[in-house]
Amino acid sequence: MSNPQHLDDLFTFLRFPSVSTDSRHAGDVVACGAWLVAKLSGMGLAAALHPTARHPVVLAKNKHVEGRPTVLIYGHYDVQPADPLELWDSPPFEPRVEGDRVYARGSTDNKGQILAHILAVGETIDEKGDVPVNLIILVEGEEEIGSPNLEVFLKEHRDALKCDVVAVSDTGMLEKGLGTFTYGLRGIACIEIKVTGPSMDLHSGIFGGTVANPATAVAQIVASLHDADGRVAVPGFYDRVQPLADWEIEGWSKLPLSEEATLKLTGAPSLFGEAGFSDHERRWARPTAEVNGIGGGYQGEGSKTIIPKEAFVKLSFRLVPDQDPGEILGLVQKHIEAHSPPGVRVEVKLGHAGKPYLTNPQDGYGNAAREALLEAFGREPALIREGGSIPIIQTFRDVLGVDTLMLGLALPDCQIHAPNENFSLSVFEGGIRMSRLLLDAIARA
Amino acid sequence: MSNPQHLDDLFTFLRFPSVSTDSRHAGDVVACGAWLVAKLSGMGLAAALHPTARHPVVLAKNKHVEGRPTVLIYGHYDVQPADPLELWDSPPFEPRVEGDRVYARGSTDNKGQILAHILAVGETIDEKGDVPVNLIILVEGEEEIGSPNLEVFLKEHRDALKCDVVAVSDTGMLEKGLGTFTYGLRGIACIEIKVTGPSMDLHSGIFGGTVANPATAVAQIVASLHDADGRVAVPGFYDRVQPLADWEIEGWSKLPLSEEATLKLTGAPSLFGEAGFSDHERRWARPTAEVNGIGGGYQGEGSKTIIPKEAFVKLSFRLVPDQDPGEILGLVQKHIEAHSPPGVRVEVKLGHAGKPYLTNPQDGYGNAAREALLEAFGREPALIREGGSIPIIQTFRDVLGVDTLMLGLALPDCQIHAPNENFSLSVFEGGIRMSRLLLDAIARA
Repeated sequence: MSNPQHLDDLFTFLRFPSVSTDSRHAGDVVACGAWLVAKLSGMGLAAALHPTARHPVVLAKNKHVEGRPTVLIYGHYDVQPADPLELWDSPPFEPRVEGDRVYARGSTDNKGQILAHILAVGETIDEKGDVPVNLIILVEGEEEIGSPNLEVFLKEHRDALKCDVVAVSDTGMLEKGLGTFTYGLRGIACIEIKVTGPSMDLHSGIFGGTVANPATAVAQIVASLHDADGRVAVPGFYDRVQPLADWEIEGWSKLPLSEEATLKLTGAPSLFGEAGFSDHERRWARPTAEVNGIGGGYQGEGSKTIIPKEAFVKLSFRLVPDQDPGEILGLVQKHIEAHSPPGVRVEVKLGHAGKPYLTNPQDGYGNAAREALLEAFGREPALIREGGSIPIIQTFRDVLGVDTLMLGLALPDCQIHAPNENFSLSVFEGGIRMSRLLLDAIARA
Repeated sequence: MSNPQHLDDLFTFLRFPSVSTDSRHAGDVVACGAWLVAKLSGMGLAAALHPTARHPVVLAKNKHVEGRPTVLIYGHYDVQPADPLELWDSPPFEPRVEGDRVYARGSTDNKGQILAHILAVGETIDEKGDVPVNLIILVEGEEEIGSPNLEVFLKEHRDALKCDVVAVSDTGMLEKGLGTFTYGLRGIACIEIKVTGPSMDLHSGIFGGTVANPATAVAQIVASLHDADGRVAVPGFYDRVQPLADWEIEGWSKLPLSEEATLKLTGAPSLFGEAGFSDHERRWARPTAEVNGIGGGYQGEGSKTIIPKEAFVKLSFRLVPDQDPGEILGLVQKHIEAHSPPGVRVEVKLGHAGKPYLTNPQDGYGNAAREALLEAFGREPALIREGGSIPIIQTFRDVLGVDTLMLGLALPDCQIHAPNENFSLSVFEGGIRMSRLLLDAIARA
């Protein structure tokens, strides 16, 4: 059974529609950050809301004592947009419990996970007066838009944020109760293409055949991104991609993973991707090019026989070591220029970008993390990479010079970024246990 | 100056949002038809609203007298959707006059043009007690959705609709005051493709690389429709296309047409189309494949890193003699199947279709039409084809066995099917004159 006070805090946290990408929700983002500061202050930490150029950072610390290791726990309180709203079974910002799950936007990504750490700290302080390490809790409000201001914040507060290791729960748990340690992440590079043609929508009978169609042009550009084998066709795209190590290929083949599970989880008619790699190899260790959104012309019921004046596509590229996001965006821009058809104007807008990340899981504080996972969940933890991107992990390495322990609590069917996002309440309680054990193990390390 | 009573009737007609493709406007369509019936009855014609499977047909007749030719005047009272609403300078169903133009959805297509004929008949009856021919006025409510029920209606009322010639104003006037006789039209064939993949939007990091992206698949299908020279790449598409006659190539080259005018009218950065043909040859006498609408995934501000669960494209093909819409739809379906990538489901929904049309403009009632155009506008009329589709013209030939005089009043910048559609009030008055002269000339023929 879940602790009612834990649930009460979780539901309050989930009710803030803290959608960072949508400027209409800027006030909700601030309100959510302010609530966290009040919560952390109430636990006895020195907490404050730090403004940035867009959404504020929540920062809290206990009293640091010389000789103890310093742990920075990172998370984010912003969430993805909730649309399409009509596909939710209940309102996305009104948490609903059904069985072991709570349904709400942000329940897994990342409010439930960061709150598990915060409540673990609160309980430890209640019982023992302090946690056994020097603690820094940093919760940002811009993760879902690529953390544009966090690097500056880290640099400006480099001394205050000096630490030995970072701990983050914003990655996956392979199955309920299988503690999962993620030692690699893909990077990301986003780009939006807008194609414009005529100055207004044209009658496709009167003008069809004599002007280029922007929607056709967008489709041609998108189609140029892949070859028939599912490989990205941008010249130079794979030049810096490192092959998988033998121990990874072997280790992953023993994990409770199956193509059938992926098929069931996604509901796709079949799996498809770059030829020559397994499902999980493609997701965790190979780069991709995906359309996140495409649009242009008539969107309503029935037909409207026009040549649309414009069309767009939003693309994101997932990157693996040693691809560099800036270099990839340059290659993609060059490719788009080379594949822009005549008769239209093509505008490219670069979006957020983050480097891929890779570290050694059987080294240093990694042992403490594996110990905490084992004790909290009672099973030998899985060592994996992940397909998602947490650009800030690379930034911690670059700015603070430390590695990150990624100890994820996101179940495969938690539907993050999608309608009916949910979080397991038993994993929530397990996460609270794990966080307490982790600080103990790091203190002993 | 416009006759105030003419304007009053026009504005009343334009205020009905008779959007036939959108089921939410079904009541407005009926109300518009009922207003027309009242108008025609008030002029002394026997008029009635005839139900069909969807939107009703307005039918009116004078008392037929043996020995006079019978003329069927055809038009439509339904209109295209008005969206995107934000691009209109004034509400689309609240007519606004500026200079010589009235701005409203349907002002040119087709309410202003059919009303010119109706008012001409009304004035003639007021002055002379009757028009000099046996008259049938037929105004349908389904032209913008491909007239799905009119063919059945014509067949069921074949005897009552027996006539010698049809007159229609639903085509273009090359420039203000240049009477224009259209002797050819392109046909049309519409198709909608829906591509589905995963059962929900997926996180593009977690799943990117292992399932096919429906938006990418739609783009690949669209890109397969053309070659680099702007030709349609569907096998067999051009097999039945007839070349232009020499007199057409020569006659058209002398008309007041220019690529510069098309560029200015469309606002496109440059003209583009099938290699080897002029602007107007491509628009009037060559077939096309156009995207009317494409969509899938995130449409909002900023980025949302998903693999969308589905995507769609709405396509229309403009056809020329002797292409057959049914045969073309079959070829296109086969092509789509051949170009559907793995990992997605592709559903094809056939839309409306209409045959291309071609007749001889210097023959039979054509001479009466050219005489009326010359006298009404004071210049030798232009003989042209048009790129648009009026499938019903072919149906008149098939069912009633008669040709159609297409005497259009749509100026090049009237923006039909687009925001800020407008109609010239001086052309409106010229159209009323022309319609009176036409009935006189046909009576003498």
